[in-house]
Amino acid sequence: MKTFTLAELAEAFALTVVGDPSLRISGVSSLEAAKATDLAFLANPKYRSQLAHTNAGAIVAGEGALATARCAVLLSPNPYADYARIAGNFESRSILEPGIHPSAVIDVNARISPNAHIGPFVVVAAGASVADGATVGPHCIIGPDCHVGPDCQLVARVSLVTRVRLGARVLVHPGAVLGADGFGLAFDRGSWLKVPQLGGVSVGDDCEIGANTTIDRGAIGDTVLEEDVRLDNQIQIGHNARIGAHTAMAGCSAVAGSAKIGRYCLIGGAAGVLGHLEVCDKVTITAMSLVTHSIREPGEYSSGTPLMDNQAWRRSAVRFKQLDSLAKNFNQLKRDSPTS
Amino acid sequence: MKTFTLAELAEAFALTVVGDPSLRISGVSSLEAAKATDLAFLANPKYRSQLAHTNAGAIVAGEGALATARCAVLLSPNPYADYARIAGNFESRSILEPGIHPSAVIDVNARISPNAHIGPFVVVAAGASVADGATVGPHCIIGPDCHVGPDCQLVARVSLVTRVRLGARVLVHPGAVLGADGFGLAFDRGSWLKVPQLGGVSVGDDCEIGANTTIDRGAIGDTVLEEDVRLDNQIQIGHNARIGAHTAMAGCSAVAGSAKIGRYCLIGGAAGVLGHLEVCDKVTITAMSLVTHSIREPGEYSSGTPLMDNQAWRRSAVRFKQLDSLAKNFNQLKRDSPTS
Amino acid sequence: MKTFTLAELAEAFALTVVGDPSLRISGVSSLEAAKATDLAFLANPKYRSQLAHTNAGAIVAGEGALATARCAVLLSPNPYADYARIAGNFESRSILEPGIHPSAVIDVNARISPNAHIGPFVVVAAGASVADGATVGPHCIIGPDCHVGPDCQLVARVSLVTRVRLGARVLVHPGAVLGADGFGLAFDRGSWLKVPQLGGVSVGDDCEIGANTTIDRGAIGDTVLEEDVRLDNQIQIGHNARIGAHTAMAGCSAVAGSAKIGRYCLIGGAAGVLGHLEVCDKVTITAMSLVTHSIREPGEYSSGTPLMDNQAWRRSAVRFKQLDSLAKNFNQLKRDSPTS
Repeated sequence: MKTFTLAELAEAFALTVVGDPSLRISGVSSLEAAKATDLAFLANPKYRSQLAHTNAGAIVAGEGALATARCAVLLSPNPYADYARIAGNFESRSILEPGIHPSAVIDVNARISPNAHIGPFVVVAAGASVADGATVGPHCIIGPDCHVGPDCQLVARVSLVTRVRLGARVLVHPGAVLGADGFGLAFDRGSWLKVPQLGGVSVGDDCEIGANTTIDRGAIGDTVLEEDVRLDNQIQIGHNARIGAHTAMAGCSAVAGSAKIGRYCLIGGAAGVLGHLEVCDKVTITAMSLVTHSIREPGEYSSGTPLMDNQAWRRSAVRFKQLDSLAKNFNQLKRDSPTS
Repeated sequence: MKTFTLAELAEAFALTVVGDPSLRISGVSSLEAAKATDLAFLANPKYRSQLAHTNAGAIVAGEGALATARCAVLLSPNPYADYARIAGNFESRSILEPGIHPSAVIDVNARISPNAHIGPFVVVAAGASVADGATVGPHCIIGPDCHVGPDCQLVARVSLVTRVRLGARVLVHPGAVLGADGFGLAFDRGSWLKVPQLGGVSVGDDCEIGANTTIDRGAIGDTVLEEDVRLDNQIQIGHNARIGAHTAMAGCSAVAGSAKIGRYCLIGGAAGVLGHLEVCDKVTITAMSLVTHSIREPGEYSSGTPLMDNQAWRRSAVRFKQLDSLAKNFNQLKRDSPTS
Repeated sequence: MKTFTLAELAEAFALTVVGDPSLRISGVSSLEAAKATDLAFLANPKYRSQLAHTNAGAIVAGEGALATARCAVLLSPNPYADYARIAGNFESRSILEPGIHPSAVIDVNARISPNAHIGPFVVVAAGASVADGATVGPHCIIGPDCHVGPDCQLVARVSLVTRVRLGARVLVHPGAVLGADGFGLAFDRGSWLKVPQLGGVSVGDDCEIGANTTIDRGAIGDTVLEEDVRLDNQIQIGHNARIGAHTAMAGCSAVAGSAKIGRYCLIGGAAGVLGHLEVCDKVTITAMSLVTHSIREPGEYSSGTPLMDNQAWRRSAVRFKQLDSLAKNFNQLKRDSPTS
C-alpha cells in the first residue's frame, strides 16, 4: 500500500500544508466516509458543514475552509483539481505489457507499434495502425483505415469501424462505436436509398469517449471532435457534426448531423442539438433541453417544464394546449377594458 | 413438446380450475392469437371484451372474468404473475454445461467455480471470480476485481470493467457495461483533468440489467443497485448513484451521479433524474419527465407538455415564451379592474 | 482510382448532361469543398447560393440550378438520390471472401451457406442459419433459432440473441442487440417476477439498424419491422412493437412495448412513443416529442417547449406551474367584466 506524508504531497503538487506535515496518508475518501489516514477534499462550499464531522486526517481545500476544518489542510487554489492529481497516486492500475496477444487477428497490412499493447480477441484490419504506447483492450475492433494515436487507451470492446483517426492520449470506454455509417437516406420512388458515407471521424488529442457512445463518420468530409472533448456514456454524434475543444457533454445527450458546437460548451444530460445548427463557444445547455435554433451568445439555455405532481401537471398541460386562445382572449379583454 | 392438463397446472401453482380439469395445454398465447390448446391470461380488465372472441382453451384470470369467459378458467388472485410462472414451463432454454470453453482467456489469478459455464471468447482478468451455477455467455469480459455471484446469467457480450460485484441470480443482457469510469472531471487552467474513479459497482440479488445499459463505477465508494432492481435497455446510471430495492426503470431512462432513488419506484421511459437528488420510496416518474429537485412524498410526478398537432403546438410554444409577461399583464389588469 | 466522364455517368444513371460530356470525374464532394474533378450536388434550394462559389467540375441538380451553375450539370429529377447512386461508385469497400474464419465457433447444428462470409470470433448457435451472400463481421453472435437472410450485412459485433429472423439485404451496425428479453415483469408479493419472453424479432427486407440500437423480442408473438425500415443509432424498440414499412427513425428515439407505428412515418431524434398506442401512416414526430395517445391523422406532431435563455425560461417555467389558476382567474375576470 502506497503512503505519503502531507509534506511529500505538498512538495509534489506545489501546495501549502496547514497542520502536521508528517501526517501519513494512505488513501483518499469523501468527507463523510474518510478515516484518519485518508485525504478528503472540499471543492463546493455547499458541503462546508461536513467539515465539522469528518474524520479525515487531512483535506485539500481553499482558504475558506481553514476556519472550520478540524484536521490538516493542503491549501489549494483549485481543490478539486489537486485532489484529482493526488488521487491518481492511489489508483491501482493493471500493468499491460507491450505486445500482441496470440489470439488477436491482425491483418498483414496493419501497422502495430512494438510498444503498443493488443489484448485478447482484438481484430485489426488492413490499412489500420496503432501507435507507440497505445493500449487496445480485449475485444476491440480497429477497422480499415483507422488509426490509434500514441498513448491512446481503448479500454475494451471498442469499435473503430471505418476511417477513424484518434489523436494522442484518447481514452475510449467499452461499447463505444466510432465511424459507423452516418444516417444518410434519399427518398426515391417510395423507398429509401442509402447515401454512401465517404468521410471519416477525426478525434483530437486528450478526448474521452464514454461507454456505448456512438460517433458516426461523415457523409463527405469528417465528423470532428477537437482536442480535450469529453463525452459521457450513451452519447450520439451524427455525421459531419463538429464538437469544439474542451466541450463536455453529459450522458445520453445527442448532436444531430452537421451541427457545430463551439469550444468550452457544457451540454447537459439527455440534451439534444438539431442538425445543421451552430452553437457558439461557452454555451451551457441544461439537461433534457432541445436546441432548435443556432445560438450566437454565450450563456445558459433551457427548454422543458418543471417537474410537478402529476395531477397538477395534467391541469397545466391542458392549459398549455389552450395557451394561444387564452392569450388572444386576454388581449381582447384588455383592449375592451375601460382602463386600457 | 411439453403438455400439461389444467388439473396439473392448478395443482402446481395452487390455482382453482373452473371448467374441464382434463383439458390439455401445450402452449401459452395472447387472447387474440390463442388456439384451443393454448392458455392465455386476462390481467387488465381493459381487455375483458376480448374474452368473447378468444379461441384459447383456457385462461388465467380473476373472478371477474367468469361471467364472460367462454373457456376454462384457472382462477388466480394475480393472473399476470401466475401466467408468468406457467409460461416459464413452455420456454425452451439452451442447456449450458458447466465448464470453460477452450477459446476463453482466463487469468491464472481468476477463480472460476467448476459449476460455472464460461462461453467462447470470454476474458476473465486477475482477481476476478465466477461463482457456482453462474453462466457467462460468449464474448463477456470480467475485469479486474469483478465478482459474478451464484446463478448469475450474463447472456452474452457483457462488460464488467473494474470492481463490479454482482449478487446472486443477477441477469445481464448483451452490450451492458458495468463499472466503466464515472464521468468525473475537474476544470483546471483551460483544460479538463480526469478525476480518478476509485470505487466500484455493487449489484444486489435478483437484479436484471438490460441490453446496452451502462452503470458507471463510483468515484469514491460504490454505485449501488439494491436487490430486485429491474433496468430495461439503454439506461444510464451515473457514478455513486443508488437505486433502491424493487425499483423498475423503463428503457432509455437515466440517473445522474450521486442521486439516490428509493425503493419500489417506477421510472418511466427516457425519464431523467439530475445528480445529487433524493427520490423517496414509491415514486412514479412518467415517461420523458425530468426530476430537477428531490422528491419527499410518494406519488406520481411529471414534466413536459402534451402532444399536439405541430401548427397548434407552434402557437402554444410562442405563448410559452411570453408566459411571464402574459401573467404580469393579467395581474395588472385584474388589479385595475373595477370588480377587484 | 476510378474515374468516369459525365457522358458515362449520364448513360449509367439516365441523366442529361448540360455542359462538356467528356469532363472526367474522379470523386464526389460537397459544393463547399469540391475540386475541379469532383462531382457535387444541389438537392436543397436553401444552398443554391453556394453554386456561385463552388469549384466543382460538375453537379447533380434539378433544372432550377441551371441559371446559377457555373459548372457542368447532370440534370436529375431527384438530385439527392442520383448523387447517392453515383457516389456508391466511389466508395472503397473491403472485399470479404466467402468462407468461415478459423477462429469462429459454429455449432454443428447451425447452417452456414458456403457463399456467406463469417468473420473472426463469430459465434453461431444451434438452430441458427446464415444465407447466401450474407456477411457476418467480426465478433457477431448469432443465437439460437436466429436466421440471417440473403445478402445481409452484419458489420461487426452484432448480437442476434434469440429467435431473430432477418429478411434479405438487412444492414446492421456494430453494437446492435436484437432479440434480447422484452421488459416483462409481474409484481407479486413485494417483488418482481420475470415474465417469459417467448416470441422473437422479425425484420423485413432492406431494413437498416444503427449502432447500439436495441430491439427486444416479443413476449408472445414477434416484434416486427416491416420492409425498408431505417433505424439510426441508439434506438430502443420494445417487445411486440411493430414498425411499418419505409418508416425512418432518427437517433435515440424509442418505441415502447406493443406500440404500432404506421408506414412512411418519420420519427425525430430522441422522440418517444408510449406502449400499446397506434400511430397511423405518414406521421412525422418532431425531435424529443413524446407520443402519449394514438394518432389517427397523418401530419406533423410535437411536444415540448422552445429553447430560451435560462433566466427567461425560469420565469416561464414558474408560470407554467400556475397555468391552471391563471386560466381560471382569467375566466372569472372575464365573466365579471362589464363588457362580457
